[in-house]
Amino acid sequence: MASTDYKFEGWLGHDPSSVKGNMKWGEFEPKKWDEDDVDIKISHCGVCGSDTHTLSSGWGPTPYPCCVGHEIVGKAVRVGKNVKSVKVGDRVGVGAQADSCGTCADCKNGNEPHCFNGVNTYGSLYKAPKERKSMGGYATYNRTPSRFVVKIPDGLDSASAAPMLCGGITVYSPLKANGAGPGKRVGIVGVGGLGHFAVLFAKALGADEVVGISRKKTKEPEVLNLGADRYIATDDDKDWDKNNARSLDLIICTASSAKMPMDGYLKLLAVGGTLIQVGAPDGGELPPINAFTLIFGGIKVGGSAIGTPREIEEMLKLAEEKKIHPWIEKRSMKEANQTILDLEAGKPRYRYVLCNEE
Amino acid sequence: MASTDYKFEGWLGHDPSSVKGNMKWGEFEPKKWDEDDVDIKISHCGVCGSDTHTLSSGWGPTPYPCCVGHEIVGKAVRVGKNVKSVKVGDRVGVGAQADSCGTCADCKNGNEPHCFNGVNTYGSLYKAPKERKSMGGYATYNRTPSRFVVKIPDGLDSASAAPMLCGGITVYSPLKANGAGPGKRVGIVGVGGLGHFAVLFAKALGADEVVGISRKKTKEPEVLNLGADRYIATDDDKDWDKNNARSLDLIICTASSAKMPMDGYLKLLAVGGTLIQVGAPDGGELPPINAFTLIFGGIKVGGSAIGTPREIEEMLKLAEEKKIHPWIEKRSMKEANQTILDLEAGKPRYRYVLCNEE
Repeated sequence: MASTDYKFEGWLGHDPSSVKGNMKWGEFEPKKWDEDDVDIKISHCGVCGSDTHTLSSGWGPTPYPCCVGHEIVGKAVRVGKNVKSVKVGDRVGVGAQADSCGTCADCKNGNEPHCFNGVNTYGSLYKAPKERKSMGGYATYNRTPSRFVVKIPDGLDSASAAPMLCGGITVYSPLKANGAGPGKRVGIVGVGGLGHFAVLFAKALGADEVVGISRKKTKEPEVLNLGADRYIATDDDKDWDKNNARSLDLIICTASSAKMPMDGYLKLLAVGGTLIQVGAPDGGELPPINAFTLIFGGIKVGGSAIGTPREIEEMLKLAEEKKIHPWIEKRSMKEANQTILDLEAGKPRYRYVLCNEE
Repeated sequence: MASTDYKFEGWLGHDPSSVKGNMKWGEFEPKKWDEDDVDIKISHCGVCGSDTHTLSSGWGPTPYPCCVGHEIVGKAVRVGKNVKSVKVGDRVGVGAQADSCGTCADCKNGNEPHCFNGVNTYGSLYKAPKERKSMGGYATYNRTPSRFVVKIPDGLDSASAAPMLCGGITVYSPLKANGAGPGKRVGIVGVGGLGHFAVLFAKALGADEVVGISRKKTKEPEVLNLGADRYIATDDDKDWDKNNARSLDLIICTASSAKMPMDGYLKLLAVGGTLIQVGAPDGGELPPINAFTLIFGGIKVGGSAIGTPREIEEMLKLAEEKKIHPWIEKRSMKEANQTILDLEAGKPRYRYVLCNEE
């Protein structure tokens, strides 16, 4: 047993203005300890777009004060008696799914991200918080039930692993579930925080062709440099949908504008193809979908939410094996407010990671 | 070789008003004979909703005169030299897919219903006609390339088989492709011409539970009588979506109103579930779909178009084995105009079949 004389301190949002650079550093009370929990001394925490929606109450009312951050990596410093999967000193991670109840049918079937009963850990992308039980990773320490704590493989550095725990898994899960791999042509709409992971993982999974899809032709070199085989510029190629009709088997759509050309994306799918939406516009309403497009194409549009702890472990292993290096920019934990402002300004290429100095 | 001294005569639409009871009986020129063709002496032809859209040019301009009808059953009276699958005297059927080119990649991969190059046979649900090559089944005779001609199993009567060739296959294909069978709970939205087939086939495929979903509570006894296990009345149960949340694995949506409660239907799906749309509103635009509904649920919305000749054969075999009796009303071929008017008035329970007297 390690000492437990540490304080939980972090960047706290006290109201919606916290998203404007107004988080305040302070102490907070973690969830009540039980013997299934793990306390983690945080070394790194990725910065995710949903952190801003939580701080601003943009996706539903947030119970303030809150400490966001759900791409947490650090060292296990206290481990409950019932925990077998982790020991003190292990390098571990916690992702966004840590709000599922663990007892409902969906949790038991490995569908934790779809649990209806979850409690808020500021990692929840989609439910109004019901009870404050845990605080996030813009902090010194984190306490999380062990079933959400995964070990980080030795060959993967902590700063690279952190943003995979939400950003990475959000695209890895639907890529894997929809058969991205040999024989498949995969399109990625939007090449940002999520989309850049989708390009990296689609390549790592062995897809025949990985196609970046974004608006401007000027982004092409960057996307090819990431590893994409081909690029489609929807603003700058007038006939982009006709020219590339039925050329993809799977599309992961990380864009979330209510004005994105969804019907055009769908026309890129070969018969039987699938588009999986992982981003949501404000309010959630997708651009209109034409029944004829679905029917003629024999295609599907689906959604996917983060991924399970088991999928995270699988992804981290693949990342280690294939030596995946996400494009990240490290920032000091002290710069969390400026980092949120930079994220809101669309500056990251492609993912910020906050680091606690040691 | 049978004699070929027969005339192709049928009910011809000459302009969009033909849908208002103004088809005229007359002779027409069939497609130019080639040795891959089969001439069929029509005994029965089902009446499909898409016939009215073709007559009225509602789904794109129709080259008049046209003879609609793509649920054709009859006897092969002339068979091309190259044809091995059918012989003179066989009882055969032709469905709606007879407009695919047979040479493109999709046709060769068994995706005939999704062929881009099809020519019009008045069976096309989704393409503006490019060339008039074939005429439909409200007629005495039909000429169709043999690859679209299927044999009718001996145990299945012609009047029952006819409406399966479009109405039946349109729902059988997505039921089969999406795993309807033991272990699956299947909902059917809209219990009309298509939906009643979906109830029958979902039961025949062995689904654990088949749930009819329509607006009015008053329809419940009829739907249960068809074989459904349960019924949901979306107009008359205020909390129908909450009360039945996540209770279905697959939904076949045969409704096509732009105002239908699509988001509610989607909430009926269990995690990983799929809704397949087979009807299209005017203009095609589906009711809004919320990204959060797709993402939280981990669900998909797809489309499906008719089915291939191989799927039709499989369906007819199942119908014979399981003794499926669709609810049909026979009409004389002479009453085609009145039948179209009755169809437009929503009267069929559930499918009209035109019969040539012998």
